[in-house]
Amino acid sequence: MSNTAPHPLLQTLRERLGHAHVLTADQTDLSSYEQDWRKRIRGKALAVVRPANTLEVSDVIKACAQARVSVVPQGGNTGLVVGSIPDASGTQVLLSLQRMNAVRHIDTDNLTLTVEAGCILQNVQQAAEQAGFLFPLSLGAEGSCTIGGNLATNAGGTQVLRYGNARDLCLGLEVVTATGDVLHGLSGLRKDNTGYDLRNLMIGSEGTLGIITAATLKLFPMPAAQLTAWAAVPSVADAVKLLGLAHQHLGAGLTGFEMMGQFALSLVDKHYAHLRVPLWQDSPYYVLLENSDSESEAHARERFEHLLELAFNDGCVRDAIVAESLSQTRNLWHIRESITLAQVDEGLNIKHDISVPISSIPDFVAQTDALLKKEIAGVRLVNFGHLGDGNLHYNVQAPEGADTAAFLREHEDTVNTLVYQSVRKFGGSISAEHGVGSMKVDSLPDYKDPVALHCMQHIKHALDPQGLLNPGRVVR
Amino acid sequence: MSNTAPHPLLQTLRERLGHAHVLTADQTDLSSYEQDWRKRIRGKALAVVRPANTLEVSDVIKACAQARVSVVPQGGNTGLVVGSIPDASGTQVLLSLQRMNAVRHIDTDNLTLTVEAGCILQNVQQAAEQAGFLFPLSLGAEGSCTIGGNLATNAGGTQVLRYGNARDLCLGLEVVTATGDVLHGLSGLRKDNTGYDLRNLMIGSEGTLGIITAATLKLFPMPAAQLTAWAAVPSVADAVKLLGLAHQHLGAGLTGFEMMGQFALSLVDKHYAHLRVPLWQDSPYYVLLENSDSESEAHARERFEHLLELAFNDGCVRDAIVAESLSQTRNLWHIRESITLAQVDEGLNIKHDISVPISSIPDFVAQTDALLKKEIAGVRLVNFGHLGDGNLHYNVQAPEGADTAAFLREHEDTVNTLVYQSVRKFGGSISAEHGVGSMKVDSLPDYKDPVALHCMQHIKHALDPQGLLNPGRVVR
Repeated sequence: MSNTAPHPLLQTLRERLGHAHVLTADQTDLSSYEQDWRKRIRGKALAVVRPANTLEVSDVIKACAQARVSVVPQGGNTGLVVGSIPDASGTQVLLSLQRMNAVRHIDTDNLTLTVEAGCILQNVQQAAEQAGFLFPLSLGAEGSCTIGGNLATNAGGTQVLRYGNARDLCLGLEVVTATGDVLHGLSGLRKDNTGYDLRNLMIGSEGTLGIITAATLKLFPMPAAQLTAWAAVPSVADAVKLLGLAHQHLGAGLTGFEMMGQFALSLVDKHYAHLRVPLWQDSPYYVLLENSDSESEAHARERFEHLLELAFNDGCVRDAIVAESLSQTRNLWHIRESITLAQVDEGLNIKHDISVPISSIPDFVAQTDALLKKEIAGVRLVNFGHLGDGNLHYNVQAPEGADTAAFLREHEDTVNTLVYQSVRKFGGSISAEHGVGSMKVDSLPDYKDPVALHCMQHIKHALDPQGLLNPGRVVR
Repeated sequence: MSNTAPHPLLQTLRERLGHAHVLTADQTDLSSYEQDWRKRIRGKALAVVRPANTLEVSDVIKACAQARVSVVPQGGNTGLVVGSIPDASGTQVLLSLQRMNAVRHIDTDNLTLTVEAGCILQNVQQAAEQAGFLFPLSLGAEGSCTIGGNLATNAGGTQVLRYGNARDLCLGLEVVTATGDVLHGLSGLRKDNTGYDLRNLMIGSEGTLGIITAATLKLFPMPAAQLTAWAAVPSVADAVKLLGLAHQHLGAGLTGFEMMGQFALSLVDKHYAHLRVPLWQDSPYYVLLENSDSESEAHARERFEHLLELAFNDGCVRDAIVAESLSQTRNLWHIRESITLAQVDEGLNIKHDISVPISSIPDFVAQTDALLKKEIAGVRLVNFGHLGDGNLHYNVQAPEGADTAAFLREHEDTVNTLVYQSVRKFGGSISAEHGVGSMKVDSLPDYKDPVALHCMQHIKHALDPQGLLNPGRVVR
């Protein structure tokens, strides 16, 4: 089609949504929609549409289905696996949920919150807090990611140990299907055994089975106190041992358990010296623990001291501090979260978001470290993550002083294969919390059970027979 | 076919499984397999097959698929919605998982337990306990139901408030699909975002999408102490208020919150006077609270006393006792669990397993009580259940002295319709924890979102195109 004869679909969409909410590249800079967050790939959309409500989403899908034009849903576009930008063809409609950002309802007796898909995660957290409750989903991108994207990708984050993934925090969904029908499932029910679990099927399907337009989420009582501790541990195995003790003695109070390797912390010390990373020269591994107490800060401290004394006597902790104040608690989290940026300052590296059973983590780390060091002399491993969930961000950094770009060019494929094969050996997952998107869709068949893949393909075909919803993501 | 010419499928099955494990009515009394637990319906199987392992299950499904014979999976046959017995045709194969009862693996560092589908729930609990951990799924039938059945029906029980339904306790499944292929998904991973959530799709699908043959389950640290309290509350609304306070002040220690109406307790007092139901003449409603403490019994008691003092001052609790000993704790649970049998002693009634948002429970109870009392003079309501989950067993008993059979005949349909319409009005579910089975499959279209039902039908057709797995259950 030429630039002068408008696409008939665009005319239909403009009639339904209004001209201001059907954006095209000849009028508007679409780069924030067309480029992924890590700026790896730039796609090209036929148009970006911004519906204001569920009915408009339904209209968009119906119009696109009739025109056989595929649709790529997008929330905050902060995904890490290139799952929410259009391909390069210029034929796909990018459906942005950002205008659907209302908090529809808070039900404090039912401990639920109903929000639209385009709500920024931080705004969801704040709405909960203003009502006196906790919405515990928490992750680095919370200032710009949307709850719809969090659910579509089953986001993880730092509170999974206690509260679960995004999936576990959702009681009901409103979804627009591939035919443009609206599935009204905004239930605030904690128990409902009337058929197949469509909610969990939609969650984590990355927009390939339906468009999530709203969700009913769980609220939790606000803890009376949150306290952190920082422990130097002699080995990964000792970190696992400490986790077991923490589960036993803190119970559900244990809301965070993050492991960090010494090299990861050395990068924070190097690039953000003002953060004053505690104890980091003493030990190969460190653990950040968080205790959320329903009683008081004094009680939280007493429980931490009891736990750490047991751990000292056991030998699985070498040295430890308990935060003295809320600001110190925040600073310890800030150190943990600064690892990501410290890596950027050190130069691009090869990132992995993997999980293995927690019991296998010590062997996984030892064996994979050794394989990589044998393969690439001087390679540096930035190993940190959510040990309590068996989830490591196991990243591979070029040797000191090496040319980063050359390192990536030369080693990226080999390193990925080596790490993923090691993950497979230990029965793990090559995408613990980031999803599949476009980036991992072609490696999935090498690491996923083939019967599971077949079931996925059958389900995709059953719910989206024309293949119009986010094609090429999750399953081919 | 005549009785003398054996069905060719039976020959095949006998070759694969051995003669001893393919049972037919001419040789064996099959009533325990063919009749549902509440003895409502008796079916007739072509044969009962009892495979010993996953490969044999796969063989059975392949042979049945080739012969186009449908298969009804069965665990302990304790279901309440007639979902695991054959129909009356004499053409279905009843697949009993009871011989597959091994505990395959316990991984204490990963807090997981891998068991076969035919394991009795109580044995799963005991295996966990012997390893020093808690497997929290707990329900009345635990001495005879199987974990495979619990997962296939997403069983609830008394610990859902803290630990969730069966679904929430499962990390991975091994499943034989409708084609007889084995889906190897026995992951011990807490995070895995590599595609659609097939685990949760299978859980709760009542054997209509695949046969669960094994599962990896979550373990929890054993609480240091479990203590119960018993509170007389002036109204349902006060019970809801007490729930909010309990969430706030006990946090995740709150592991049970059961509400019981005075009439339900009067039946226990009448038929089991030796249980000495506390305080039951004082108040229209009562709450049994359980506090699981990771510290000590003294701490649990102190937290309870703190909570109850706040509740007294607020007025939402009129009188209360905290159990003085483990035996008193058990006795309070025993009273709660005796409501089911006390109803039987009083005469059959019309049972409902419904859920509504917790915030709607006071209005739901008031309005539905009033409608029923207007419809049937002298009707008695046995209202009790898991208030913390929004799940009530809202049962309707004949007026005192009435003929029970005549009452059921005359009123069952009207009462069901009236209760279910009230449930729908409050956005609730007509089956909170028991499932759909055959009993509710035909009323589902009246109470379930039509788009959700369509999606379910598409999924059923995609994963079981011949309709051989437990046909006529969940979806038509």
